[in-house]
Amino acid sequence: MKQSYNVAVVGATGAVGNEMITVLEGRNFPVKELRLLASANSAGKKLEYQRKDIVVQELTEKSFEGIEIALFSAGGDRSKQFAPAAVKAGAVVIDNSSAFRMDKDVPLVVPEVNAHAIARHKGIIANPNCSTIQMVVALDPLHRKAKIKRIVVSTYQSVAGAGQKGIDELANQIKALFSFQTAEKKMFPHQIAFNCIPQIDVFEPDGYTKEELKMVNETRKIMEDQSILVSPTAVRVPIFMSHSESVNVEFENDLSPEDAREILRNSPGVIVQDDPGKSVYPLAMNAAGEDAVFVGRIRRDNSVKHGLNLWIVSDNIRKGAALNAVQIAERLIGHS
Amino acid sequence: MKQSYNVAVVGATGAVGNEMITVLEGRNFPVKELRLLASANSAGKKLEYQRKDIVVQELTEKSFEGIEIALFSAGGDRSKQFAPAAVKAGAVVIDNSSAFRMDKDVPLVVPEVNAHAIARHKGIIANPNCSTIQMVVALDPLHRKAKIKRIVVSTYQSVAGAGQKGIDELANQIKALFSFQTAEKKMFPHQIAFNCIPQIDVFEPDGYTKEELKMVNETRKIMEDQSILVSPTAVRVPIFMSHSESVNVEFENDLSPEDAREILRNSPGVIVQDDPGKSVYPLAMNAAGEDAVFVGRIRRDNSVKHGLNLWIVSDNIRKGAALNAVQIAERLIGHS
Repeated sequence: MKQSYNVAVVGATGAVGNEMITVLEGRNFPVKELRLLASANSAGKKLEYQRKDIVVQELTEKSFEGIEIALFSAGGDRSKQFAPAAVKAGAVVIDNSSAFRMDKDVPLVVPEVNAHAIARHKGIIANPNCSTIQMVVALDPLHRKAKIKRIVVSTYQSVAGAGQKGIDELANQIKALFSFQTAEKKMFPHQIAFNCIPQIDVFEPDGYTKEELKMVNETRKIMEDQSILVSPTAVRVPIFMSHSESVNVEFENDLSPEDAREILRNSPGVIVQDDPGKSVYPLAMNAAGEDAVFVGRIRRDNSVKHGLNLWIVSDNIRKGAALNAVQIAERLIGHS
Repeated sequence: MKQSYNVAVVGATGAVGNEMITVLEGRNFPVKELRLLASANSAGKKLEYQRKDIVVQELTEKSFEGIEIALFSAGGDRSKQFAPAAVKAGAVVIDNSSAFRMDKDVPLVVPEVNAHAIARHKGIIANPNCSTIQMVVALDPLHRKAKIKRIVVSTYQSVAGAGQKGIDELANQIKALFSFQTAEKKMFPHQIAFNCIPQIDVFEPDGYTKEELKMVNETRKIMEDQSILVSPTAVRVPIFMSHSESVNVEFENDLSPEDAREILRNSPGVIVQDDPGKSVYPLAMNAAGEDAVFVGRIRRDNSVKHGLNLWIVSDNIRKGAALNAVQIAERLIGHS
């Protein structure tokens, strides 16, 4: 194992890119050089890492000389265009976009679930969709115990999922409405302030959004079980940080709420918050800035033979994106 | 049929009571005298009806002399205490609280679904829970066609469900947070601004809230089918008006999305908004102040034999409470 690595963050000025820098620093990732890359617009900006300013450079195909690990979070088009150059330069790419996730040659990894898949990489490892990551961290340990047949999930997703511009849009709309002005919209298909929008990403012909289909397909790939059925509804709600999920699971075998809690208490990356009589359950507000996937409201669903309902919450920028990518990098170098 | 009626609104100064007055006026309900009743605190206030001020009177057991229809929306305790006095005075009580809903002698009515049950009343008719009303208006027509076996529903409920104080709390919390002050909470178990709270009402020993169990029990009673299974998760979200619901339905028989849309287009009280490619689907923001139950995102759920997913939105104060109560009164007097 080497002592330290040359790391690039592609899309460094975005919400996820920024958080990647924070997570690399916070977890003492063994960085030799940190190279920050972004579009020409952002080149020249300075970002802080370990109390020093690093100047953001323009992303080009020549940006990756000497880079060993490249964390990409600059959108699918940029990943498709520049990831091959990074791989050619000798880097392993950990890509947060959806560009390569379903490519059979690309491992799709949540370290708590399928870290072993990292070894199969051919230069690119994909970081899953945020809604999927938190769901599989919570469900995989239960699947191993009682085998999941079917999942019905409805999400409550924060505007941070649309990046810094999504955060700004919610804030600006609320300020406008509270000043009796018109709320302008750019990022979301409708006003998000004081509204719930049952659309994230574009619609496919079957009536599901791409975001929803990610939850179907990525869940199966990460959990390595094509028999798992997922029926998703993805909804944007007017909160800044963290995604919440109402998850209904039908198992092959019986699993009591007590056993589920016990399993989850002993599962990596999970914190059980489940004392409803004292109003203790996971909350988006409390999950923001935290590493864990929080699970609560675990209760029997008596409408089906072996059913449970759960409420799963996590910081979508952190475990849902930046942290998961850095955790993959840690596994890659044998650091954790 | 009489020409006009003496009507009392109990809880006239609350969010629902106020809307009842608006709906009575807007629908030209044949009112002879409108008597507005509330707690001693609110007595003396004036509310407008047909451009005249009506002075709110203190609710006592003697308030109902001459009253023929009493619309109650002052909480379960007040209903239990004062509804018998109203009935004794000769009024028919239409009660918006949960006090009598599951009483076998009390019809629980959504006029589009089971108006016929009104005739069985013995002085009291119950108005169902808001989340349940909008769900059964949309699902009953589909049930009649393809028979519902099981419903998995997750709600996105506005703060208006907690009355004017709930609305004020969200507004005040946002104002405080945007001024870098602490958000105070009184009405909700946690901060609701920029948060999702998976608790509405108190918890029962099985881990479900009373709000959730209402959706189980009231649905069966209104749809008059004890075989319907309901698995609910009720969640408060930071929006002012309207409840949204992500509803997964398993049917006994096949029902295509096209047939479901066609049935719903011809169903009373329903408006289909379902052109996702153009980002047309029901939105809480647009439903506010409207009478209809809006249904969209109707799509096949391929994770089960005969499944559909739907997104159902309605104004919880209007169809979910005040309008439904007045519609019951209209049926009672044979006015509609």
